[in-house]
Amino acid sequence: MTNKDARTPASTQNPTETSEAVEAGKSIGWHKAYVEGSRPDLRVPVRQVHLTNGQSVTLYDTSGPYTDPLVDTDVRRGLAPLRENWIVARGDTEEYAGRPVRPEDDGIKHTSPRGGLRNLDAVFPGRPRLPRRGREGKAVTQLAYARRGEITPEMEFVAIRENVSPEVVREEIAAGRAVLPANVNHPESEPMIIGKRFLVKVNANIGNSAVTSSIEEEVEKMTWATRWGADTVMDLSTGRNIHTTREWVLRNSPVPIGTVPLYQALEKVDGKAEELTWEIYKDTVIEQAEQGVDYMTVHAGIRLAYVPLTANRKTGIVSRGGSIMAAWCLAHHRESFLYEHFEELCEILAAYDVTYSLGDGLRPGSIADANDEAQFAELRTLGELNSIAKRYNVQTMIEGPGHVPMHKIKENIDLQQEICEEAPFYTLGPLTTDVAPAYDHITSGIGAAMIAWWGTAMLCYVTPKEHLGLPNRDDVKTGVITYKIAAHAADLAKGHPGAQEWDDALSDARFEFRWEDQFNLALDPDTAREFHDETLPAEPAKTAHFCSMCGPKFCSMKISQDIRREHGGSRTEIEEGMAQKSREFAAAGNRVYLPIAD
Amino acid sequence: MTNKDARTPASTQNPTETSEAVEAGKSIGWHKAYVEGSRPDLRVPVRQVHLTNGQSVTLYDTSGPYTDPLVDTDVRRGLAPLRENWIVARGDTEEYAGRPVRPEDDGIKHTSPRGGLRNLDAVFPGRPRLPRRGREGKAVTQLAYARRGEITPEMEFVAIRENVSPEVVREEIAAGRAVLPANVNHPESEPMIIGKRFLVKVNANIGNSAVTSSIEEEVEKMTWATRWGADTVMDLSTGRNIHTTREWVLRNSPVPIGTVPLYQALEKVDGKAEELTWEIYKDTVIEQAEQGVDYMTVHAGIRLAYVPLTANRKTGIVSRGGSIMAAWCLAHHRESFLYEHFEELCEILAAYDVTYSLGDGLRPGSIADANDEAQFAELRTLGELNSIAKRYNVQTMIEGPGHVPMHKIKENIDLQQEICEEAPFYTLGPLTTDVAPAYDHITSGIGAAMIAWWGTAMLCYVTPKEHLGLPNRDDVKTGVITYKIAAHAADLAKGHPGAQEWDDALSDARFEFRWEDQFNLALDPDTAREFHDETLPAEPAKTAHFCSMCGPKFCSMKISQDIRREHGGSRTEIEEGMAQKSREFAAAGNRVYLPIAD
Repeated sequence: MTNKDARTPASTQNPTETSEAVEAGKSIGWHKAYVEGSRPDLRVPVRQVHLTNGQSVTLYDTSGPYTDPLVDTDVRRGLAPLRENWIVARGDTEEYAGRPVRPEDDGIKHTSPRGGLRNLDAVFPGRPRLPRRGREGKAVTQLAYARRGEITPEMEFVAIRENVSPEVVREEIAAGRAVLPANVNHPESEPMIIGKRFLVKVNANIGNSAVTSSIEEEVEKMTWATRWGADTVMDLSTGRNIHTTREWVLRNSPVPIGTVPLYQALEKVDGKAEELTWEIYKDTVIEQAEQGVDYMTVHAGIRLAYVPLTANRKTGIVSRGGSIMAAWCLAHHRESFLYEHFEELCEILAAYDVTYSLGDGLRPGSIADANDEAQFAELRTLGELNSIAKRYNVQTMIEGPGHVPMHKIKENIDLQQEICEEAPFYTLGPLTTDVAPAYDHITSGIGAAMIAWWGTAMLCYVTPKEHLGLPNRDDVKTGVITYKIAAHAADLAKGHPGAQEWDDALSDARFEFRWEDQFNLALDPDTAREFHDETLPAEPAKTAHFCSMCGPKFCSMKISQDIRREHGGSRTEIEEGMAQKSREFAAAGNRVYLPIAD
Repeated sequence: MTNKDARTPASTQNPTETSEAVEAGKSIGWHKAYVEGSRPDLRVPVRQVHLTNGQSVTLYDTSGPYTDPLVDTDVRRGLAPLRENWIVARGDTEEYAGRPVRPEDDGIKHTSPRGGLRNLDAVFPGRPRLPRRGREGKAVTQLAYARRGEITPEMEFVAIRENVSPEVVREEIAAGRAVLPANVNHPESEPMIIGKRFLVKVNANIGNSAVTSSIEEEVEKMTWATRWGADTVMDLSTGRNIHTTREWVLRNSPVPIGTVPLYQALEKVDGKAEELTWEIYKDTVIEQAEQGVDYMTVHAGIRLAYVPLTANRKTGIVSRGGSIMAAWCLAHHRESFLYEHFEELCEILAAYDVTYSLGDGLRPGSIADANDEAQFAELRTLGELNSIAKRYNVQTMIEGPGHVPMHKIKENIDLQQEICEEAPFYTLGPLTTDVAPAYDHITSGIGAAMIAWWGTAMLCYVTPKEHLGLPNRDDVKTGVITYKIAAHAADLAKGHPGAQEWDDALSDARFEFRWEDQFNLALDPDTAREFHDETLPAEPAKTAHFCSMCGPKFCSMKISQDIRREHGGSRTEIEEGMAQKSREFAAAGNRVYLPIAD
């Protein structure tokens, strides 16, 4: 079955709406609507844009209940657990006491001179909950369900979101070509899918570091990122309060949350890589799985023998996880504990339906290091680990680079798809040049669009602060918007049915000078409106047949419209009016100048 | 001859420098230097970046004398005419009285209710000059010189800039694969070349409109754009004071200036397209050629018969010039006067060495219209006109789209190169999606990088204000930087020898925590420094082995360095230290897990 068969344009769907919401939304040009599935508790959110010509356009929506004026949200309470009934109804998981939360989970050790939590109020005050895991002998991952032919509510939800049949979703997950990250302990999340047959997804990284930022800021960054279109969020906190920050983020996140457990594990050994052990790492993974982390980056592909391959690199190892594991391997002169305990790790992840994101610890950090021996040696190991994970029914995606010049990008996705049996590729950019710090959202947006066109399923955003500092709120927005552009450009290039409807609606609005529609359909309506109003703030300019770019006399689209009006609207009518003249020209060979022979 | 044979890395050159300039420059990390050619008046400017490790990196420089502290510039006097002696020495041009400047050249007509120049001081006060043109029977274009085997000082200048042999420059110009826009009346310009064998170039558009901006602003935008790397500037003014604005811009511009004469011609007939005549257009071209415009966009490819092809388009005709000519053709029901008088126009352009930029009046203005019949019909006519222009020794480049989804980009450059006998392609973006007004520098930067990789010679920038309003100073900078990224990414992908040295130097600085070097080598040092200092403003942070992104404990590059330090710096040393362990692993088949068969 081709995509074309399976997909129908979003706008043919008929979202349910309350008149109150519609009226509230219309005043700002769009409102949150829901497409109902086969059961009343399966409601897929969409962004319904109301055009001034009476039509409407339905767009994919990642912003969660926060943009629904009829839902009362409170970050201290958390989001409603929309998947809880589905999970419980399957009857294959059980609640249990769970691992006790310890002070060191938040980086507080009696041996540490750093003292306690700065702000005890920071402990998440929401409803008490027990963690849940698969019952003994039960395979509770979406991959397991898909393999045995079951279409879960999560799959149906995703099918509606993507405008494909639920069977396509099931098939792609069963084949390992797509993942649906959905930890049983994160019932607040709205199901989404990552795979090359589906819309290209965007991840936004948030997280504090030892140097800066607070819990409140991270929760705010998460809701802000999803507001602008982030499909998943990774909490990469490395500073204090890691456990508590993550709890706040998870309980309030409508999108899957990813982490790198190694970062927290390292905090627990006071930053000394050589003191890491499998036991500490395993305990951290369970801690995070119980909280509800949906996918985890695991740097199990960086093996002892690969470390020397990086010695002559220009920028060594630039992945934090990669460098930690390399340091550990060298300190102990032994194979990575992640690699050696990979099967045990699979068993843990399977019990919670945590998805693997197999990390590329040896990704190139500069143009000079792209596609080198170290990088591809690790990729081959990731292929090996992908096969093992599948044996344990663990959903798996593969991380990719990094810094890669344009002519070396395609080899990355082609090789990954071959080695990893078409498992979803999840790339950071790639950055197509090293020379533009402060603009690496752009250097990488170029590479991201290209690699997504060629099959990458999810793009990890890069913000303007990359290489320079932690992104603030504005940087997060710029990163997300840039990557939504890359993702949508790829959707168009891949010919995803329905993708071009968005462009067409906006271009129609542009040609017909429906300025408000143009703003409301834009990826970032606020900035589009602000830029327009900078030179033409008056209300009449919103319906004017020109903008300040060319002024009224020179607007090409106005002239185009005048031509149509004066000479008839259709091609036939214009041709009719020109028939006589055309005949004259045809008689003269239709050219004034003859082409030159050489 | 391949590029590899012809080019040598920029840094192997030995720029002349005065110790005063070096000292002045060192305090800010770089200084303006010059590489001397075969004669003392042939001095090619470069940007010499001084690294804290004692090395230096030489970068291409477009900023003109303004960044040389030893040159006293004054916009009221204009730049020194560096090419004047070369032009005069050739003895094939002559000064003449020139066309008298009329009030309507600045949009002031007695029939107009709009009154006189707002500010009479605006008349350019610089040195009086007479226009110059080729003597009767003399071919004074760089193409003519190249064809007869002459290497002009302009060609030598360009060869030094591009690190190629002068003969390569001559060959590429003679073959029509490159242009060196250099009107004999713009002796202030520093020669540069546009062709696929050379570094990808970037054009920045400036110009007022009927709605906004002043002469001062436009001159400022021009120097600002070249400061950040614009290789040429197009003055697209459509409002008042067109002639005077252009005079100020030309006399102060170190880069070639392009225009669209049709815009000014239309002003002379009060914006009524149907009142345009060949005589008014021709007079405007001569007016601008006498001022020194280096290249002109001429929409001679939009023929009467093509207009109906646009009737069913989503966004009609979006080129201003295109829509004006279409309106004229339909109003008169006759063939375009530009097409009919093209040979006469060639004679005029040849006399001043004005380069053609054959406009794509039917470029697509939306994803829906990309690569359609109208667009490619016009392209075939541009191929025909390109051959005619070459007959008249007029240098010629071809303009390209526009809005094109990624999978349709390559067809544009491939077809253009075939139809136009490899004449330089000069594209606007292309924009890879329509859905992101306010971010079209990014939607188009993606397409620009790709099409440049595949052979486009010059990229016309798009600013964040595209579709919304006139760019201000910040927008101009953002547009230029975005396009320099696209151009450099393409230079890397094309494997231009020397191009990667810049990336390598910056990555070395990054890996070695030489923050100041990283900033000074950046495309935009100011913003890179500002972003870093936002979270770590203290001076010691400039030498710290971490940034606020990950903090001190998690810096992967620090860990990489620690690994090298502890285990020996070279691959051999690390391997040595690991030899024993490696042998053990080799004995065990070098893997813990065996690959799965299926």
